[in-house]
Amino acid sequence: MKKIKLKVPATVANLVCGFDILGMAIHEPYDEMEFRLLETPEIIIKHTDNFGLPEEPSLNVAGIVLLKIKEHLHLKTGFEVIIHKNIKPGSGLGSSAASAAGAAVGANILLENILSKEELVHFAMFGEELASGVKHADNIAPCIYGGITLVKSSNPIDIIPLNSPDLFVTAVHPQVEVKTSDARQILKKNILLKDAIEQWGNIAGLVAGIQKNDFALIGRSLNDVIVEPVRSILIPKFDKIKEKSLKTEALGGGISGSGPSIFMLSEKEETAQNIAKLMKSIYDEIDIENFVYVSKINPSGIKITE
Amino acid sequence: MKKIKLKVPATVANLVCGFDILGMAIHEPYDEMEFRLLETPEIIIKHTDNFGLPEEPSLNVAGIVLLKIKEHLHLKTGFEVIIHKNIKPGSGLGSSAASAAGAAVGANILLENILSKEELVHFAMFGEELASGVKHADNIAPCIYGGITLVKSSNPIDIIPLNSPDLFVTAVHPQVEVKTSDARQILKKNILLKDAIEQWGNIAGLVAGIQKNDFALIGRSLNDVIVEPVRSILIPKFDKIKEKSLKTEALGGGISGSGPSIFMLSEKEETAQNIAKLMKSIYDEIDIENFVYVSKINPSGIKITE
Repeated sequence: MKKIKLKVPATVANLVCGFDILGMAIHEPYDEMEFRLLETPEIIIKHTDNFGLPEEPSLNVAGIVLLKIKEHLHLKTGFEVIIHKNIKPGSGLGSSAASAAGAAVGANILLENILSKEELVHFAMFGEELASGVKHADNIAPCIYGGITLVKSSNPIDIIPLNSPDLFVTAVHPQVEVKTSDARQILKKNILLKDAIEQWGNIAGLVAGIQKNDFALIGRSLNDVIVEPVRSILIPKFDKIKEKSLKTEALGGGISGSGPSIFMLSEKEETAQNIAKLMKSIYDEIDIENFVYVSKINPSGIKITE
Repeated sequence: MKKIKLKVPATVANLVCGFDILGMAIHEPYDEMEFRLLETPEIIIKHTDNFGLPEEPSLNVAGIVLLKIKEHLHLKTGFEVIIHKNIKPGSGLGSSAASAAGAAVGANILLENILSKEELVHFAMFGEELASGVKHADNIAPCIYGGITLVKSSNPIDIIPLNSPDLFVTAVHPQVEVKTSDARQILKKNILLKDAIEQWGNIAGLVAGIQKNDFALIGRSLNDVIVEPVRSILIPKFDKIKEKSLKTEALGGGISGSGPSIFMLSEKEETAQNIAKLMKSIYDEIDIENFVYVSKINPSGIKITE
């Protein structure tokens, strides 16, 4: 195989209580990435979008991943990648993870699956490091494995694929800037043990709910007493959106990754669509440009389309 | 039914990383409790052991539970309970929880199951409050539900029964005093966020491992970076027992409840027996009286025997 095209999905990291360890793949939005194996040892990156992302491989999230794979495998061949980016950079929906994970998976398919999934995560993390300064895997893992994943440890890499509950996801991206680095700095270095205990009760409940397909348990476990109270201040209308979504029968939800996107889980498509409408109307009312996505949890992650 | 006899098992709270939220029922040791419904409204508690526990109902862990149930249901009848206690008070193996949970379950059977399991936990927690000053449910829940339980919240009561993996448990009770209140006071009120994140990665891994029957995952999730490093100082030879048990192929383990008992999980009975021997020899060598128990995880909790 010399040429392929991938559909690379957005991801929601943290899942409210699971800060830095949980992540979930969704269907919308998604990037498309076209890969071609080159006879020459170059890496060529092209963007068809107008986000102004760098195309110099060592400065590009997909490029750095390909460079690291090339170096590791002592490849004499190269890759050309054309990225059609739809997951907006800075949205909190795993835009950089999509480029990084997509690059690793795409290269690996062209190389006839020489790398394991753990190795794909390992190389994709160089892309996250370039994008945010931190080698984290909470978006990369669900993008590669699909469904909901637990990053039990990122050094050494220990990814636990969890179930993929049959739920709808509504996500809204309000066009405001929340830098991952700011969202990280705002967190306190010390927390109360009693808050940590409440948090790990919720995490244990969430993982149990996911594995048992107990949607009510998932809903009442989606509480974050540590990160959300601090970070939600950076997101306009967060409290109103959460409160109204829960009244509209969302199971629960919160900040996607480090924001500004907000996601909600619902059992029924109708509920998910109603939540989409209310999210849109709340941001329209205060003239914040916004993008709303409704899809299901994506059980398979990155897909080959051509 | 006017008379019954129960077998009430020991329990292991916390399960290493799951401080204050997880607990597990085992088969050995266990108490026996005989119940008789009385025509008169008295509560009579008798002990056949020589632990010197009070028999005055309002000062007795089982007694207070029966008083609370009697009051709540406006009972005109009473109960006589004869307790054959084998789970040593202060062992960290859920001795008070056994009396409390046994009392609630025994009374409920004589009253033809008028109370739900959540209500049984609610009433049994009064016994824990009398014993330790804290209304906690992490030993009571597995005693009543069996297997491994998650106390997602104790107010309101939200108990999540998890799977009961087919594993062997070795527990050693070294006869040294560790007061629950001391073990609690020694903990820091503040912890590092980065430690909390590592801890909830382990908790999520442990719950996933339990639900997936992934024994290797259970093993590598049994790490506690917050409570064990502080509390294990109170238990002689803790580090040596843990290190040697892991070398003897224990999946993992740690302090049972607030100690001083130590437990280890193993896949094979032979491993569990070898660990029992090494635990015994380590405490014998330094002349600490000790009691060692080998059994399996107990999937059903309290059982009616007569």
